[in-house]
Amino acid sequence: MDDSQWFVEPAPGAGYSIGLRIRKRLERIESPYQTIEIFETDDFGRLMAIDGCIMLTERDHFIYHEMLVHPALLTHPRPGRVVIVGGGDCGTLTEVLKHPEVESAVQVEIDQAVTALARRHFPELARAGDDPRADLHYEDALRWIERAPPASIDVLCIDSTDPVGPAKGLFETEFYTTCRSRLKADGILALQSESPFLYPDLVKQIHGRLAEAGFRERLLLPFSQPTYPSGVWSVSLASSTTPLGTFRSPVSLIPSPRYYSTGLHRGLIGGLPELYQRLL
Amino acid sequence: MDDSQWFVEPAPGAGYSIGLRIRKRLERIESPYQTIEIFETDDFGRLMAIDGCIMLTERDHFIYHEMLVHPALLTHPRPGRVVIVGGGDCGTLTEVLKHPEVESAVQVEIDQAVTALARRHFPELARAGDDPRADLHYEDALRWIERAPPASIDVLCIDSTDPVGPAKGLFETEFYTTCRSRLKADGILALQSESPFLYPDLVKQIHGRLAEAGFRERLLLPFSQPTYPSGVWSVSLASSTTPLGTFRSPVSLIPSPRYYSTGLHRGLIGGLPELYQRLL
Repeated sequence: MDDSQWFVEPAPGAGYSIGLRIRKRLERIESPYQTIEIFETDDFGRLMAIDGCIMLTERDHFIYHEMLVHPALLTHPRPGRVVIVGGGDCGTLTEVLKHPEVESAVQVEIDQAVTALARRHFPELARAGDDPRADLHYEDALRWIERAPPASIDVLCIDSTDPVGPAKGLFETEFYTTCRSRLKADGILALQSESPFLYPDLVKQIHGRLAEAGFRERLLLPFSQPTYPSGVWSVSLASSTTPLGTFRSPVSLIPSPRYYSTGLHRGLIGGLPELYQRLL
Repeated sequence: MDDSQWFVEPAPGAGYSIGLRIRKRLERIESPYQTIEIFETDDFGRLMAIDGCIMLTERDHFIYHEMLVHPALLTHPRPGRVVIVGGGDCGTLTEVLKHPEVESAVQVEIDQAVTALARRHFPELARAGDDPRADLHYEDALRWIERAPPASIDVLCIDSTDPVGPAKGLFETEFYTTCRSRLKADGILALQSESPFLYPDLVKQIHGRLAEAGFRERLLLPFSQPTYPSGVWSVSLASSTTPLGTFRSPVSLIPSPRYYSTGLHRGLIGGLPELYQRLL
């Protein structure tokens, strides 16, 4: 196995790595926040990596983006105003805009370079930024959320990198408390909550902090993500009042989801694998 | 990243690899059938690899073994006589013997060296071979099944390696047809059916061949397996008459499952991720 032809991501402190065979590196940018690279892989299409971690590949990103967006937006009774924290590649925005109930979708990404690279290498995602309902901001989401009017958001999607570097503050109780106050009373928070297999204590901590922040309803949604460490990842939903155990039928999503299905969603509500259920 | 300290398995033709950081190789045996290696990993406990492919690790093997065994044995009304094809590490046998309904469990492994190595390095699994209900044979399962009396088996678990080398014949319609005739009328076949993400055409082919062999009921059960290529793997169930959409409650399994749960099982029956549903 010729190492020079593989992009390999060792998961921090986990003794586990994923590799994708690559044809060539297309770009490498040092932004003020991080190092962003774009590769052409042999079998997973284009790959965006940030600080050596796989962010998305053309072949499997739909899983993560659909799971971050559809359960939350179908659980909310009427998700008119959606805010995305992070998500500079516009993949989450793309899924959000498939919901006809959405009137405005604000994306707050700290690093404009992420979106600039997505424009060049993932145009099928970045074009979501041209939708008249989309509103793209480039600043620290912690500050943006602080300034947002109270009770102004229906669904808040936290599409962050891992809890190190620029995204660390997005995993703190203080941030969750601010998010809760900016959500309307029936609002829903959806966040990427890392690998429940590799980092069970972190998932437990996230759910504990969501509870501390006053989110009485919480739901863990694990799913298989081939290019994220351990191949299993999770999204968590949290709300103050809206029950998370029922949802609307997604008859109107265009184009149709490729991973999300109502059967899957209902199944996850009904019961998780035992080892993930025990985390909660 | 120092390559010499990692065990890396590139999935054949998939441009995808999984690596586990290792401390040392404990054994390497060339049996008449294959090369078997045992490693001590940093974070996944002991690892058994056959011909360079990860077979099991101490940390996550329970997922695969529970999913191969519990859905089938809880769906069958009274699984008294169980036969395991392959499974020389005795992990499947271990899960089978947790079911009090099981009166005899026959394991037919072609390669005695696999079980010998499991005795030394996975004794918590291999000790299942000492159970008075267990009966271990070392021969080609294709021949063993040919000789088995018709309608003599309640549940047949195919715990094979990938469809190359010694296991190739275990993925053929002819073998499935023989299996069906050796199962009782209400018998259930459970087989490892590879990664539905990396090899969707293979999964489709397996289900097509099961149908050709006369199995009218079929069920695909995908699950997250961190150390198998793509992190998502599958088991398939097949039966001639027994409905696969209901099952008994596993109140009596000792010790309790760590991955399997009735909620998970019910959820998988109710609906798969869209991309896997479409395969069927």
